[in-house]
Amino acid sequence: MSGRRARKAGDPETRQVILHAARRRFGDSGFAAATIRRIAADADVDPALVMHYFGSKADLFAAAMELSFSPGRVIASVLGSARREELGETIMRTLMGVWSDPDALAGWLGFLRSAASDEQAAAMLREFVAEVILKPVAGVIGGPDAERRVGLAASQIVGVGVTRYIIRLEPVASASPEDLVSTIGPTLQRYLTGVL
Amino acid sequence: MSGRRARKAGDPETRQVILHAARRRFGDSGFAAATIRRIAADADVDPALVMHYFGSKADLFAAAMELSFSPGRVIASVLGSARREELGETIMRTLMGVWSDPDALAGWLGFLRSAASDEQAAAMLREFVAEVILKPVAGVIGGPDAERRVGLAASQIVGVGVTRYIIRLEPVASASPEDLVSTIGPTLQRYLTGVL
Repeated sequence: MSGRRARKAGDPETRQVILHAARRRFGDSGFAAATIRRIAADADVDPALVMHYFGSKADLFAAAMELSFSPGRVIASVLGSARREELGETIMRTLMGVWSDPDALAGWLGFLRSAASDEQAAAMLREFVAEVILKPVAGVIGGPDAERRVGLAASQIVGVGVTRYIIRLEPVASASPEDLVSTIGPTLQRYLTGVL
Repeated sequence: MSGRRARKAGDPETRQVILHAARRRFGDSGFAAATIRRIAADADVDPALVMHYFGSKADLFAAAMELSFSPGRVIASVLGSARREELGETIMRTLMGVWSDPDALAGWLGFLRSAASDEQAAAMLREFVAEVILKPVAGVIGGPDAERRVGLAASQIVGVGVTRYIIRLEPVASASPEDLVSTIGPTLQRYLTGVL
């Protein structure tokens, strides 16, 4: 906040300083209210440098939360490639791919565990999911009840994650990814585009 | 564990002593391995006295976890009254009723929050849900994939609970109970009795 821009792109600590500032700012203000500009000021760097390192607020958040992948890019890739009538299965297959990466899974589970015991973390998760995941999917679904549809799909996705990886309830915990794609994919498809 | 049975039904503290012993025993051994006999011994009472107060291991567990209602009785009532082709909507409507009681909801959320951060609590939740909720429903569903079907239904139920009450993601968080019954009920029905 000093006005000088002490840190440059070449400084090996700069990335860590930005991540540290981002973690504090997201924690204090939540995902929606935190801005790249403010985080850059906290870290004493130029906002362009934050974008240079992280590309977007969503990716900076993912990196700060150690999600180890870019939810925004994954969503964009699904929405860009899947046909409308295959969205349910494609989303489910993509999720199973993301969750099969131990680092990505650990990041999400840590985030979810925090949200379960801490309202500030719950608010961050809520705002992040709403803005980075639900909004673009709702944009593709379209129609007056798009958000309701995507919310229902989110409830099933959150549920299979919690049941499989946190409660570890059988036989969901040991089900093959393909089994979950074929059984839960149609649920997501109905929520997103079917008759409700 | 002294062999004497110091506490009697008339002692006003007896119920609390049993609950305290149950909480410790369920915590140490998990739901499946803990027995009424062992909890009675820990509390220095006759096992018949535990049954007199609580009726069953499931109800003792519910009381110890402060679930404030009997999941076993709720399940039995649903399974006893609903027609097979209405199971999905009936389960969802019953859930919305249980969750509309702030005490019942708080009990479940507390349990779920503990499970999210503590493996011992997760094991208790897993064993309790498997034995008291999934097993009787799977018995009614029947067939070789009954447990798989009930597990999928559980994943949707857990998901709507976490999304609505812990993450509080809109519009699921503010959806009317009837809306969730009519949109999620058919998902449960398909998982339980439909084509997978």
